[in-house]
Amino acid sequence: MKNIAVILSGCGVFDGAEIYESVLTLLRIEQQGAKYHCMAPNKLQMHVVDHRTGDAVEGESRNVLTEAARIARGEIIDLAQANPDDYDALIIPGGFGAAKNLSDFAVTGADCTLDPELTRFTQAIHQQGKPVGMICIAPAMAPRLFGEGVACTIGSDEGAAGAINTMGGAHQTCSVSDIVVDEQRKLVTTPAYMLAGSITEAASGINKLVDKVLAMS
Amino acid sequence: MKNIAVILSGCGVFDGAEIYESVLTLLRIEQQGAKYHCMAPNKLQMHVVDHRTGDAVEGESRNVLTEAARIARGEIIDLAQANPDDYDALIIPGGFGAAKNLSDFAVTGADCTLDPELTRFTQAIHQQGKPVGMICIAPAMAPRLFGEGVACTIGSDEGAAGAINTMGGAHQTCSVSDIVVDEQRKLVTTPAYMLAGSITEAASGINKLVDKVLAMS
Repeated sequence: MKNIAVILSGCGVFDGAEIYESVLTLLRIEQQGAKYHCMAPNKLQMHVVDHRTGDAVEGESRNVLTEAARIARGEIIDLAQANPDDYDALIIPGGFGAAKNLSDFAVTGADCTLDPELTRFTQAIHQQGKPVGMICIAPAMAPRLFGEGVACTIGSDEGAAGAINTMGGAHQTCSVSDIVVDEQRKLVTTPAYMLAGSITEAASGINKLVDKVLAMS
Repeated sequence: MKNIAVILSGCGVFDGAEIYESVLTLLRIEQQGAKYHCMAPNKLQMHVVDHRTGDAVEGESRNVLTEAARIARGEIIDLAQANPDDYDALIIPGGFGAAKNLSDFAVTGADCTLDPELTRFTQAIHQQGKPVGMICIAPAMAPRLFGEGVACTIGSDEGAAGAINTMGGAHQTCSVSDIVVDEQRKLVTTPAYMLAGSITEAASGINKLVDKVLAMS
């Protein structure tokens, strides 16, 4: 049975992993007869956002791994302990956590830096010839991870697409129900909640992404 | 288009709403051509549980509505502001939040009391002849809400089933992929993560529950 690593970035769209994208990813992996293992970096979130108001909460801090454990029902490991040899592929759901905790793209855009453990694990998976799927805003990290010319999508947001191109990526506009595949690098991306207006819309692209990642693994 | 109220009890299986059950419920409602609106009580959680360790976190407090907003991507209202006239049915996902925040069943068992806004809203929906679905441990609140003889299930856990019967309920053993329907009271229940070993298993019963609730509405 194929074993898919899923890197979460917290729990909640505004400061962590987008919950629907994460659950839809896990559900599809299971439905296609594979299994998954969740992991997250063990460090403080960039900040905590009140999801009712959208405002950052002053004086509160939360740990990315501890919050991500909510999505994983406690079945999660520290990304620093994850061994790429144990997995057949990697999928990274979106949410602002991908741009605030896995990277600082939300703050620095094309000048972004990535979490070192995220870089280590993802590049090792890639160097082993295994496919990687990135959802929503997570593909903004693709140029840093996979180098010049990598094809990917974050949908149609001009600011984010421009930053990807500035970093050397080859952004492709993509609808919510579709995926962009860089066959050479085995990278699959889909816009999900960069464009989705509903869970069903998000699922349409995420299901295709998971299916393609599994097919390439 | 039918409009389904979904009462959440936080965000995370050990101190709030079970995330997979909540997302599967919302997804199925959408897939069946209805819409949903999330709501939660605006009060402090019973406690905060570290989902990596399972331990309660001393000195930390979180608000049920604020945390539930993570599952709802911010699209949520205070349960106290919810008008039963606006909805065609109600579904309450499980997680310990149903037994810690919507009620105190986790602490007091058959002596439990329910959140007054939960009681007000649910009984109003019921008195208007609209169906109610309860998932996982949430049906432990059914005897208090629907009175003597109400048929429901929490799966096969003897302790919880016994407490339901002590409160006057008529617990029925049920598999994870099935539902129990009290046709007279229009109450539908399913065990979900009281028994589920995977998201797919949880979905099998939850999908049936949502379909039945929609059919009765």
